Amino acid sequence: MELLKERIRKDGVMKPGNVLKVDSFLNHQMDIELFNEMGKEFKRRFEGVKIDKILTIEASGIGIAAIVAQYFKCPVVFAKKSQSINLDGTMLSAPVESFTHKRKYEVIVASKFLHPDENVLVIDDFMANGCAAAGLCQIIEAAHANVAGIGIVIEKGFQHGGAMLRGRGYRVESLAIVEEMDPETQTIRFRED
Amino acid sequence: MELLKERIRKDGVMKPGNVLKVDSFLNHQMDIELFNEMGKEFKRRFEGVKIDKILTIEASGIGIAAIVAQYFKCPVVFAKKSQSINLDGTMLSAPVESFTHKRKYEVIVASKFLHPDENVLVIDDFMANGCAAAGLCQIIEAAHANVAGIGIVIEKGFQHGGAMLRGRGYRVESLAIVEEMDPETQTIRFRED
Repeated sequence: MELLKERIRKDGVMKPGNVLKVDSFLNHQMDIELFNEMGKEFKRRFEGVKIDKILTIEASGIGIAAIVAQYFKCPVVFAKKSQSINLDGTMLSAPVESFTHKRKYEVIVASKFLHPDENVLVIDDFMANGCAAAGLCQIIEAAHANVAGIGIVIEKGFQHGGAMLRGRGYRVESLAIVEEMDPETQTIRFRED
Repeated sequence: MELLKERIRKDGVMKPGNVLKVDSFLNHQMDIELFNEMGKEFKRRFEGVKIDKILTIEASGIGIAAIVAQYFKCPVVFAKKSQSINLDGTMLSAPVESFTHKRKYEVIVASKFLHPDENVLVIDDFMANGCAAAGLCQIIEAAHANVAGIGIVIEKGFQHGGAMLRGRGYRVESLAIVEEMDPETQTIRFRED
């Protein structure tokens, strides 16, 4: 998605350790106009695919998923990262290891919000090692629902998440795939669409 | 907002300890169509008020804020609840004590995303003791920006948050104010609009 790549080139900041900061428009401040363009693009890429629900993960997936859902006319469920006193009933969970935060946690979804045979689109802002998306897929399948696809805003193509999930047969659509980035020169190379 | 009150009556679950669970449409599963109606209602209530930015807090404020922002045509910033390795630069922070989770934390916003004289609308899903909203207001004022108002989806009118913030001169608009609720009979009484 050219508009997104341009925005990453303009406002993304590369840091040592393969960190790409896009907090000015994606995951701290959120450019809702851009999110709407991303919503249209996900809709275009998943045209003809039946989507009953979107599943994302707190916190930075939520804003994107909410806007994207408008194009699929479906509700959003967001997975939580820690047990809350307000969560009860049967829970589905999966272990996740975060690349950014270097920590392990459980992602949790109340099982009443995922029904057998529902077609669920996974949406998230970033994919690096693919653990978060894999955890969400595991939860969807534990609910006997179907993973209709995985929509990612920025995929780090030089890490193994995308390859791993595509290898498992999931359809992964990433709006921008970073092949290479250099914090010294602040240059970035994207995979061709 | 009658549509919201009806939905709370239909799908809200009251629990002992003044807990109102609305996770089927507000803060675990999100009804994006309802969120759009809430966005229109906030726009109606803050008609004529200059809003440059929306500030909310992770996680359950984000989806609502993203949808509401479409009606104000402005970006959203969401405050984070814990220091992240991806946050750097100057931070603004305020202490918050959560009613739901019975814990204290810091809310943090990168100061580069709040500018002097900006008019900022605070949006959140719930208000009980008002600590989260008060913390966001404190951050906005520390950035020498203006609190243009506070928009809350569900206010617990029997707790002191709304009164405290209105007493400080903030304009608080809550789409549903719960006056009383009874977990035994599952009945709820709202303040008249």
